[in-house]
Amino acid sequence: MSEPPGTVDVAVVGAGLAGLVAARELTRAGRSVAVLEARDRVGGRLLNVPVGDGAVVEIGGQWVGPTQLRVRELADSLGVGTYPTYDEGDKLFEYAGRIRRYRGSIPRINAAVLADVAQAQLRIDRMARRVPLEAPWRAPKALEWDSQTCWSWIRRHTATEGARKLLALGIEAVWAADPADLSLLHLLFYTHSGGSFDELIGTSGGAQQDRLVGGSQVLAQRLAEQLADAITLEAPVRRIERDDGSVRVIADPGSTRAAAVIVAVPPALCGRIVYDPPLPAQRDQLTQRMPQGSVVKCLAVYERPFWREQGLSGQATSTEGPVKVMFDNTPQEGSPGVLLGFLEGRQARELAQWSAEARRNAVVACLARVFGEAAGRPSEYIEKVWAEEEWTRGCYGCYMPPGGWMDFGPALRAPIGPVHWAGAETAVVWNGYMDGAVSSGERAAAQALATLA
Amino acid sequence: MSEPPGTVDVAVVGAGLAGLVAARELTRAGRSVAVLEARDRVGGRLLNVPVGDGAVVEIGGQWVGPTQLRVRELADSLGVGTYPTYDEGDKLFEYAGRIRRYRGSIPRINAAVLADVAQAQLRIDRMARRVPLEAPWRAPKALEWDSQTCWSWIRRHTATEGARKLLALGIEAVWAADPADLSLLHLLFYTHSGGSFDELIGTSGGAQQDRLVGGSQVLAQRLAEQLADAITLEAPVRRIERDDGSVRVIADPGSTRAAAVIVAVPPALCGRIVYDPPLPAQRDQLTQRMPQGSVVKCLAVYERPFWREQGLSGQATSTEGPVKVMFDNTPQEGSPGVLLGFLEGRQARELAQWSAEARRNAVVACLARVFGEAAGRPSEYIEKVWAEEEWTRGCYGCYMPPGGWMDFGPALRAPIGPVHWAGAETAVVWNGYMDGAVSSGERAAAQALATLA
Repeated sequence: MSEPPGTVDVAVVGAGLAGLVAARELTRAGRSVAVLEARDRVGGRLLNVPVGDGAVVEIGGQWVGPTQLRVRELADSLGVGTYPTYDEGDKLFEYAGRIRRYRGSIPRINAAVLADVAQAQLRIDRMARRVPLEAPWRAPKALEWDSQTCWSWIRRHTATEGARKLLALGIEAVWAADPADLSLLHLLFYTHSGGSFDELIGTSGGAQQDRLVGGSQVLAQRLAEQLADAITLEAPVRRIERDDGSVRVIADPGSTRAAAVIVAVPPALCGRIVYDPPLPAQRDQLTQRMPQGSVVKCLAVYERPFWREQGLSGQATSTEGPVKVMFDNTPQEGSPGVLLGFLEGRQARELAQWSAEARRNAVVACLARVFGEAAGRPSEYIEKVWAEEEWTRGCYGCYMPPGGWMDFGPALRAPIGPVHWAGAETAVVWNGYMDGAVSSGERAAAQALATLA
Repeated sequence: MSEPPGTVDVAVVGAGLAGLVAARELTRAGRSVAVLEARDRVGGRLLNVPVGDGAVVEIGGQWVGPTQLRVRELADSLGVGTYPTYDEGDKLFEYAGRIRRYRGSIPRINAAVLADVAQAQLRIDRMARRVPLEAPWRAPKALEWDSQTCWSWIRRHTATEGARKLLALGIEAVWAADPADLSLLHLLFYTHSGGSFDELIGTSGGAQQDRLVGGSQVLAQRLAEQLADAITLEAPVRRIERDDGSVRVIADPGSTRAAAVIVAVPPALCGRIVYDPPLPAQRDQLTQRMPQGSVVKCLAVYERPFWREQGLSGQATSTEGPVKVMFDNTPQEGSPGVLLGFLEGRQARELAQWSAEARRNAVVACLARVFGEAAGRPSEYIEKVWAEEEWTRGCYGCYMPPGGWMDFGPALRAPIGPVHWAGAETAVVWNGYMDGAVSSGERAAAQALATLA
């Protein structure tokens, strides 16, 4: 455990993508920086795990979409290439007790259900476009939209049980939360922030289109190499003291004085730092109202991606679960074969309480049900219960329950004197994604720079 | 700043009513106790303020109702008497731009609105009785009820705008939160926990019926006298280390070893303590999902309670606000006259951002509009923005947004090894009230005692 530098221009809390990008911007502007990271590694919600033969895959955030320009530019600048998520062959869909095989983006199920879903999505996209990204609380019907859950809206605006299940599945896949958890306004803001609902849930053409060569964490690792001595690991920040002109950031191994600090951890965790003087009411109560989603990311490793030989893409969805969303997550090398399964929202919360063995059995049994017997015998099984991670406490990100945006939204990005906020949750475009993390780091760095003499 | 004792049987975090009652129970059972309190005073959300001539009134929780047996028994045992909240004379109701004077419990407004409200309340009470207090998530329609906000339910089950405003006013008065913030299941649980909706909002016969002689904080002060050396003030607990058999509770002035610890602070603040090993996923994510309500409690002091001379009770409600609920809060002595006004939910959040002077002006102007010119010239104005209080961060208590009870409810009281949870939010009966704080302290003490050798 090394000590952080005693004095710098700007301190950064958290070496996730947002914090590292902020630090790079500050360094480029000729400022000295100290990045204080609680873990013994950089990357935050980005984490590679080895799957044999030198290959790695991600057990955290991993995909980049075609319109995610900030993270693409970052990858380019770091010499990190992309390759397409495996999206060839048929998809599988478990619905109403049957597994159906289909091509394209729409499974062949009951036409009334499909029409019902399509109309709901159309409505969502149309409403979403009316939500100002910089200020969702100014949407024309903001109060009404923020006063109800997505569950309530779906129930009112769909006619079939099938459509409700499918929309729930989509919401769980995007937010790792249930339709009951989310404010409708949050869904609309987030949808607009990413473009459209199809872009949020899509593979080719959507947010899951591409992968990063070497695994997404490599972005953080390369940034960290550039920042070198500026980063102190195993340095959880416990306290931030501030006066008009400066801050003192106190971490376990030591403290750093700076003219400003950028706090680049999820809003729910921002509230766990002690601030002296204490934060204003609105900012503090915001941190009580942006809970993290709940996800267990599961990787089943096989000698080769056997499903490809059967003309399957490895992409599957199931309304039964417990694994509701599955992907081929084989590394670029083509082996070993890796199936990725997500436990999300209620399933994650329930199964997180099981023993690791029972959870593994349930996940693998589900994969076998969908992909056939061979999927029931992985050579390795790797999982991450993100809510157990002390320095993340959930994934994919923090969301707004009803009432959050209206009364607390304005506190999301507003600096408190020399204390600035970054992180994917504070982004305007692609909120909640790597892309949003990058732009938030850039924005926070610019804000902090503007305050320096 | 004195140091806490080095070793005791049980440590208690927080010297609010729950923590103090727990400590008393443990002491009575012959166990040694250390109560670690962050503030320089005991009482938590109970706080007396002087209003001149030796009289005090409460700027925090204050009332006790007829069925609140645990807190009544506690008051008895401490020699603290009760006296009735001033409830004579007419009430005032500002509605649709007019101030109406009425007697009894129902203002004379549009009969359709009154019938609409009455029917909604009847439905709420009927549903509430079906919520098991020990396990709200087992209610017959728990999933449906926990998937929607109170706003959605009210909108669907009322026909008039007036009824919606009145029900919103009632909800704000009870939870210091907006109908959009609360899960319907939470409203139903809480209503059942207190008896009925009328009991929650009522004065005579309801939760606001009586006051405590000497001010409610006297309960905490008398308990503290009995506990004497067991309490360490100015000792915020930062960290709780545990193994199978014991805990180490680390506060700013020193640490205490114990066989068990009772954490008696609001759930939202429980998450701000560092636990080693970290808490399980469900318990941690619960603390991200029980935000504190938002209230500014305002006291306007006058030479005498002049409204009484006009045949007014001092009780008033207004659908316009910003002060929506007003009471005569004159101390038992009968002078000075004190009007109490609450800013709750959205009003509290909005006005908490104003300067103290602007807020005072808005509150006093509102009192003058309702009670006449004389109310516009208080000799003193006292207020507390509870969300600014570092060791409470809101009031009246933490509530469940949609989805909270279903997925996280079971973690509310379940001990984590030697770590037990108390506080009004963990109570089964009169959850959120002083009465619930008392029973929660008794329950947690019994749990902890049962684990001691």
